[in-house]
Amino acid sequence: MLTNSESPLMLIQKTCRFRGGIKSCFLSPLVRLFTSSRSMAKSKFEYVRNFETDDTCLRNCYIVVRLDGRNFHKFAEQHAFTKPNDNRALGLMTRSARSVMEELEDIVIAYGQSDEFSFVFKRTSNWFKRRASKLMTHVASQFSSSYVFYWKEFFGEQPLLYPPGFDGRVVLYPSNRNLKDYMSWRQADCHVNNLYNTVFWTLVQKGGLTTVQAEDRLKGTLAADKNEILFTEFDINYNNEPLVHRKGTTLIWEKRDETVTKRVKLPKEEEEKEVHVTRSRRKVHAHHGDIIGDQFWEEHPDVLEDDDC
Amino acid sequence: MLTNSESPLMLIQKTCRFRGGIKSCFLSPLVRLFTSSRSMAKSKFEYVRNFETDDTCLRNCYIVVRLDGRNFHKFAEQHAFTKPNDNRALGLMTRSARSVMEELEDIVIAYGQSDEFSFVFKRTSNWFKRRASKLMTHVASQFSSSYVFYWKEFFGEQPLLYPPGFDGRVVLYPSNRNLKDYMSWRQADCHVNNLYNTVFWTLVQKGGLTTVQAEDRLKGTLAADKNEILFTEFDINYNNEPLVHRKGTTLIWEKRDETVTKRVKLPKEEEEKEVHVTRSRRKVHAHHGDIIGDQFWEEHPDVLEDDDC
Amino acid sequence: MLTNSESPLMLIQKTCRFRGGIKSCFLSPLVRLFTSSRSMAKSKFEYVRNFETDDTCLRNCYIVVRLDGRNFHKFAEQHAFTKPNDNRALGLMTRSARSVMEELEDIVIAYGQSDEFSFVFKRTSNWFKRRASKLMTHVASQFSSSYVFYWKEFFGEQPLLYPPGFDGRVVLYPSNRNLKDYMSWRQADCHVNNLYNTVFWTLVQKGGLTTVQAEDRLKGTLAADKNEILFTEFDINYNNEPLVHRKGTTLIWEKRDETVTKRVKLPKEEEEKEVHVTRSRRKVHAHHGDIIGDQFWEEHPDVLEDDDC
Amino acid sequence: MLTNSESPLMLIQKTCRFRGGIKSCFLSPLVRLFTSSRSMAKSKFEYVRNFETDDTCLRNCYIVVRLDGRNFHKFAEQHAFTKPNDNRALGLMTRSARSVMEELEDIVIAYGQSDEFSFVFKRTSNWFKRRASKLMTHVASQFSSSYVFYWKEFFGEQPLLYPPGFDGRVVLYPSNRNLKDYMSWRQADCHVNNLYNTVFWTLVQKGGLTTVQAEDRLKGTLAADKNEILFTEFDINYNNEPLVHRKGTTLIWEKRDETVTKRVKLPKEEEEKEVHVTRSRRKVHAHHGDIIGDQFWEEHPDVLEDDDC
Repeated sequence: MLTNSESPLMLIQKTCRFRGGIKSCFLSPLVRLFTSSRSMAKSKFEYVRNFETDDTCLRNCYIVVRLDGRNFHKFAEQHAFTKPNDNRALGLMTRSARSVMEELEDIVIAYGQSDEFSFVFKRTSNWFKRRASKLMTHVASQFSSSYVFYWKEFFGEQPLLYPPGFDGRVVLYPSNRNLKDYMSWRQADCHVNNLYNTVFWTLVQKGGLTTVQAEDRLKGTLAADKNEILFTEFDINYNNEPLVHRKGTTLIWEKRDETVTKRVKLPKEEEEKEVHVTRSRRKVHAHHGDIIGDQFWEEHPDVLEDDDC
Repeated sequence: MLTNSESPLMLIQKTCRFRGGIKSCFLSPLVRLFTSSRSMAKSKFEYVRNFETDDTCLRNCYIVVRLDGRNFHKFAEQHAFTKPNDNRALGLMTRSARSVMEELEDIVIAYGQSDEFSFVFKRTSNWFKRRASKLMTHVASQFSSSYVFYWKEFFGEQPLLYPPGFDGRVVLYPSNRNLKDYMSWRQADCHVNNLYNTVFWTLVQKGGLTTVQAEDRLKGTLAADKNEILFTEFDINYNNEPLVHRKGTTLIWEKRDETVTKRVKLPKEEEEKEVHVTRSRRKVHAHHGDIIGDQFWEEHPDVLEDDDC
Repeated sequence: MLTNSESPLMLIQKTCRFRGGIKSCFLSPLVRLFTSSRSMAKSKFEYVRNFETDDTCLRNCYIVVRLDGRNFHKFAEQHAFTKPNDNRALGLMTRSARSVMEELEDIVIAYGQSDEFSFVFKRTSNWFKRRASKLMTHVASQFSSSYVFYWKEFFGEQPLLYPPGFDGRVVLYPSNRNLKDYMSWRQADCHVNNLYNTVFWTLVQKGGLTTVQAEDRLKGTLAADKNEILFTEFDINYNNEPLVHRKGTTLIWEKRDETVTKRVKLPKEEEEKEVHVTRSRRKVHAHHGDIIGDQFWEEHPDVLEDDDC
Repeated sequence: MLTNSESPLMLIQKTCRFRGGIKSCFLSPLVRLFTSSRSMAKSKFEYVRNFETDDTCLRNCYIVVRLDGRNFHKFAEQHAFTKPNDNRALGLMTRSARSVMEELEDIVIAYGQSDEFSFVFKRTSNWFKRRASKLMTHVASQFSSSYVFYWKEFFGEQPLLYPPGFDGRVVLYPSNRNLKDYMSWRQADCHVNNLYNTVFWTLVQKGGLTTVQAEDRLKGTLAADKNEILFTEFDINYNNEPLVHRKGTTLIWEKRDETVTKRVKLPKEEEEKEVHVTRSRRKVHAHHGDIIGDQFWEEHPDVLEDDDC
């Protein structure tokens, strides 16, 4: 609500006046009716506020907001995304996620792949008083406006044809184990899908199969079979495919020292001097490695809080 | 999730192979470890799905999603919005709301003023299975991406400096009376704020007061006093101010006949003929009148469903 | 909490003292440790209160609490309930429901059959601030303690073998139509079950079938078939069965005039006189008729509130 | 629902018949109307089921159900409870709590004091599919029926005057630390209240003060002051007061070996022999010690599950 507001007041108003400052006021019956039916308006209606329900998230749990693109199959087709992965689109997703993290500082880690992104608020966050609706709508909104805002940075002159939509949800995780398993679930999903899509589109693009033929070919195959097809038929070692495609993108805050040069005028001296100032700055950094194993978490011990809190 | 997906499968994979179809496979210990810890990955982690909670909205209630701009005071300042109302900004809000309604067809009415917009889903809607989180995030997302997308239509060459954010909430209303009172509450709020802002900015812009002086001047004044100030000091009849500022914007679906001319080639005839085809089309229309009284609702009886259902 | 409470205080205490009022106090290290770890105890722990979530019921909806007996098949068997209906057990259910209604006066109607009972709070009730958990646990508790308390009134010297359990739930209904349909659903359920049970136990008790044979006999039969069996084979017209079994029990508040005789000593007179005083009293009354049709609701227009509120 | 039920069926029924097996059936218009309006009854109404909302408790959290007596000040007075503590009443509370634990085996620990009792379901419990409403109503019901059922065991011939009521609530705790802090909060509450009540009633019963005087005397006193009053004026060392009053009652499951003597007839032998059989049995045991410090939890490591799950 964008307002220099006043508290709920009587709305009685003189609705007509003669010019010249004459104080008497003539109200037509219609206006009178209008005025009186209106006069207590706001306070009379304000009871509707009580229909709002409290959706505060349980304390001491990680709050995960996951966004998913709406009809992104169609969106990808209409914007000619390359298959199986479009690096411009992935870059734009990550750019938008970074914009969300910079806006909502209690997000400690985010993970994205394909057209989805998950944002994790720290257990002790009190952002928006932990109101689920506020948290997820703000994330969805900031992400979506950023997606359009930064489109040009990734797609250049190719126009965005219409404003895309994302939907979101909130899930709570009580323990570090649960949270890590959630992240692992999403990364395992990335792996399963990307392996499938890589083989599928290789069969179509290099193997000359139709999409129906490719689908048939892959029906019932295991991961090993898919690796096999890539390797023996197309000389592709799946493990050499780009990490960003196989593992997705993990964003965390990292502290880095930054040295800047400032011109300072010291007291008692007449001239300015150049001074090197080093400060530690928190910045969002992207990783594309494994987050299922322990290594990532051991290397970044600050991301998660202790369970025993 | 943008994927030609396969159902949760074993992820066992041969990660290295010699060329030429030799079947034996050499796995380094590291790879083996990796493979085995990964192998049942997805199914092992999928339990985290059960932490999602059901947030289905109670049946037979209107579902209202209200969006509010985040830090729009600052946003308005940075983008030099005119005071007390910026028609470009109001137009862009309405354009974005229209985009939401066209995307989510179960919205029967929407009402906006200042930097807020409320969207009302019909009582019997089953959109997203009435899941509150999906409804509000999709509305927030579609609105926000539209806001950036259509910016240029309203602000021309003036650049958007950063992606704006909106937050949202869901409120349920069980009866027509409750819903109309909600709409009335928002329109009464529009009235109170706009009257205040109109006088405030008139005192500043035409009266030469500072903002602090204007605030002091208005402290404790009633609506009648404010009308008085406008009329006697500035010769402004508040009731002649633009409806869109005093009443906000109401969007509803309306059926209008549309006649188009088509060129048709009839059977048995050799030449094409022009034919006039009239069809009834549902379109979003904007109103700026009063919605607190009964007249609006009587003139648009299809907006609300019967209470006795 | 049963207490002459004091607000959260420091709990510092002298834990040992010499007799005779000597003011010095010797604390052993252990005690000191104990005391200091305890001293801020209550305030230190009170944060756990914030884990409670608000479960306020949506305003302007009927709040229905339904109780169901736990393992009542077994309970009925162990207490030798007569089949298909035990009037003592039904009477005890109704007595307990009456006790609930008298305790929670915002309940406007209750309906029971078999081992279940539904209680309806009026739309505008603010009992327990509409907190769902408080409403349903209080109903469940009052019903259960009453069931044991009044057992003897219905079962005489037959002992209650163990304390029975009931579970409950809360459901909200936004309109009168929805609420009446809920009540109809329960009464239709009563009908379906009672017809089945009547035929089933007649086949066993009078027809000499085993329970397995009776079940087989009834497999796939419609209501008409069951009426037929009762009539042609056992000369029973189902419609003459007791209403309480066929329709269940509906409890509502009714105003009745009550005339009591009081002995009053009037001023200026020396002797007491007998005076008849008539007052209108609200009492819970039981009905066993149909509540699916309109008649019941038309005859008791005060039970439900208007939809347009 | 206590029924040999049939699934929702057509309820078509012949409502009148001539004696003697004549198959033709005459339905009066009224009856016909009734029948047809009734015929699809149950399926027509069953939509109301969809108004139930899912209240599944978040996984991997402790589920605490706390019960509080309703109007127990009055109840205590009417049943002449001794002040400040009535051992019969405390014993009955504990007996009822034990009955709850024996009925709902997933409760791992319970704690009670005064007229309240808290029950803790293990983190991984799937009792009632973790539905909050079912859990709390069943606990409230079982506790209340037990309270009346076991009344005589503790109050002998003193009659219970009316069925008492308890209300309940559900709170979730994600970590062992949170749960222990909850338990500590309740025990600290016990301490604060019992110390106050002990001094208060000593001042009244032994010191001859009125209740108003006693209240005045205690206004603003700290725990140390209260200990002081007890000791110097009444020669009472508060720390020697009964543990059950100072610390409340903690119930947990414990395994104990039980040796029973059975008469067995071994094969190939003609006579029966007495055999001693030892088995480990899980039983509810009561403790009255401190649960704020670590010792209790270290001595009973099986009560809580690991945080890292």
